[in-house]
Amino acid sequence: MRVHVVGTGLIGTSLGLALTRHGDEVTLEDAVPTHAALARDLGAGRLPAPGEELSPDLVIVAAPPDVTAACVLSALERWPAAGVTDVASVKGAVLAALRSAGADLARYCGSHPMAGRERSGAVSGRHDLFDGRAWVLTPTDVTLPEVLELVTSVARAAGAAVRRLPPEEHDRAVAAVSHVPQLAASLVAARLETLDEAAVSLAGQGLRDVTRIAASDPHLWTQILAGNAGAVREVLAALAADLDGVVAALAALEGGEDAVGARGTLARAMAAGNAGQARIPGKHGAAPTAYTTVRVLIPDEPGQLGRLFADIGEIGTNIEEFHLDHGLGQPFGLAEVDVVPAAATDLAEALAARGWRLHG
Amino acid sequence: MRVHVVGTGLIGTSLGLALTRHGDEVTLEDAVPTHAALARDLGAGRLPAPGEELSPDLVIVAAPPDVTAACVLSALERWPAAGVTDVASVKGAVLAALRSAGADLARYCGSHPMAGRERSGAVSGRHDLFDGRAWVLTPTDVTLPEVLELVTSVARAAGAAVRRLPPEEHDRAVAAVSHVPQLAASLVAARLETLDEAAVSLAGQGLRDVTRIAASDPHLWTQILAGNAGAVREVLAALAADLDGVVAALAALEGGEDAVGARGTLARAMAAGNAGQARIPGKHGAAPTAYTTVRVLIPDEPGQLGRLFADIGEIGTNIEEFHLDHGLGQPFGLAEVDVVPAAATDLAEALAARGWRLHG
Repeated sequence: MRVHVVGTGLIGTSLGLALTRHGDEVTLEDAVPTHAALARDLGAGRLPAPGEELSPDLVIVAAPPDVTAACVLSALERWPAAGVTDVASVKGAVLAALRSAGADLARYCGSHPMAGRERSGAVSGRHDLFDGRAWVLTPTDVTLPEVLELVTSVARAAGAAVRRLPPEEHDRAVAAVSHVPQLAASLVAARLETLDEAAVSLAGQGLRDVTRIAASDPHLWTQILAGNAGAVREVLAALAADLDGVVAALAALEGGEDAVGARGTLARAMAAGNAGQARIPGKHGAAPTAYTTVRVLIPDEPGQLGRLFADIGEIGTNIEEFHLDHGLGQPFGLAEVDVVPAAATDLAEALAARGWRLHG
Repeated sequence: MRVHVVGTGLIGTSLGLALTRHGDEVTLEDAVPTHAALARDLGAGRLPAPGEELSPDLVIVAAPPDVTAACVLSALERWPAAGVTDVASVKGAVLAALRSAGADLARYCGSHPMAGRERSGAVSGRHDLFDGRAWVLTPTDVTLPEVLELVTSVARAAGAAVRRLPPEEHDRAVAAVSHVPQLAASLVAARLETLDEAAVSLAGQGLRDVTRIAASDPHLWTQILAGNAGAVREVLAALAADLDGVVAALAALEGGEDAVGARGTLARAMAAGNAGQARIPGKHGAAPTAYTTVRVLIPDEPGQLGRLFADIGEIGTNIEEFHLDHGLGQPFGLAEVDVVPAAATDLAEALAARGWRLHG
């Protein structure tokens, strides 16, 4: 397949690397020609020769969200025989812009590979960025079956798991599972900006987990949030209403009024969180599985974690999850090794026999 | 040391187990006598003999937050020579209740071991629950030095790292680093309760991290939040104000008005999140350290993670962090192995030589 990639940042370059490895013929362009040249040098594809007329089967627009619609429109005009897709994190806004420009939407199929990194640019590109990730296709009623097929092939060639959703459903879904969680993490982390050092030093694993994605790029995220303003605002308004209820309940408790009703509000907020959290799929998108956790104390000496790995490897138990929890101000950590319940006792006994200190 | 534990739930039982191992003489009581008997059977200490007059050096109240002050008051009266502490997650409310009851505060030193589990009750007790955790002591001006010393000894005997903070400072700190993050996680997770299955299935690692603690116990957390209502409300009100700003910005963008100002609001919220997140201490409470991550593809076949552990153990590199990231809808996972930058290349080459597929 001949694929032309417009925009050689993290996603475009990674796609070029993946499709080149897959055997596709990939050409590259970028608004900044040196960026395209860098992607070429990294092995993501070739640049068109001067004056060369490209005839791609599929054009993939991997430009920033704000310029995606303009690039798609231009691609539809430049290559009247090609299918065109884009990879922006929001789909409704792109489609609306294309519609209002009178674009021929038969050859367009929006898509969203749910992959990314904290770093950006061609140098951060990885051929395996899409391995095992969801790649949502958002065809419309007029999308040609062969264009849908082209985008599906490319997504699968890049190693992704293809899903199909209507554009507006996609946008509502990512508002709830990605954009609002991102904002919540950022707003919680923002509270730490001016906090006393003594207070920040009490941070535990819970806070670290809640705020990890608060390290994401503000420039990119401003475009994503602005592009999905309607769906994000809707989910966020529901969250804000719950939050106002909690703030009012806390104020009532502070003032000593209506303690029963106020406590009910807090308990309901926590219980709704329980119910929502329980719906999140676990490993491989399947239902959450209850594993048994074997906890092992790791002395903070060189090679101790490696020694644990070697011992677990020799014991031969199949490990489902592995998590390191570092204690605060103490020279050791706690490893949590999740296994199927039937294997836990044997693993624990074998580790204890090798001198490991087990917890609970 | 003679220690009397009042309340044999998760914390009281774990303390009894830890202090018994340490060689202290631990006696137990609980409002529900069978709970105390269970803790005794688990090895957390002994029950007082019928009619026995105890003369503890220290009484530790490990009752639920709502009844902590009453239990402390009773302990101060029952054992006029003993020091008394409690382990509730909020300190100001307990102190205020004791003051208004006219308690002799010289023998009281509040404290908060920052340890817990998702499960509760004596059966979940672990002697090492406090290993490497912070244990905040909140003495007042009138707390006797010898009582402070007793609580310090017990915290250290249980393996914890002792910190000291004034009660109101402790409450403000945990509001920001624990209580508000808990509420945010619950409110984000609550949005998933009624979400379409197709949307929930797009959940990625970011959402999982943000909402992990949303699985916590609503009953306990209602008491904690109610007990720290003032400090939590203050932090939450600041978050709600930021949130309202973001909602207004999104509404403006939806309506096409004032796009520059609205985008500025979004970008500032994200940037403040960057700044706050960067302040969170990493391993062992030290400043965050930049490790290099080696990413290894794990085929989803029995024993593959164990084989990786065995190989890493043989290679002998010191591993700083280890994280498993499961892909969606694809039969494999991605292991992220963090090492000091100087060791990354050697580890990656050694793993590749053993047939592992490395990522980026």
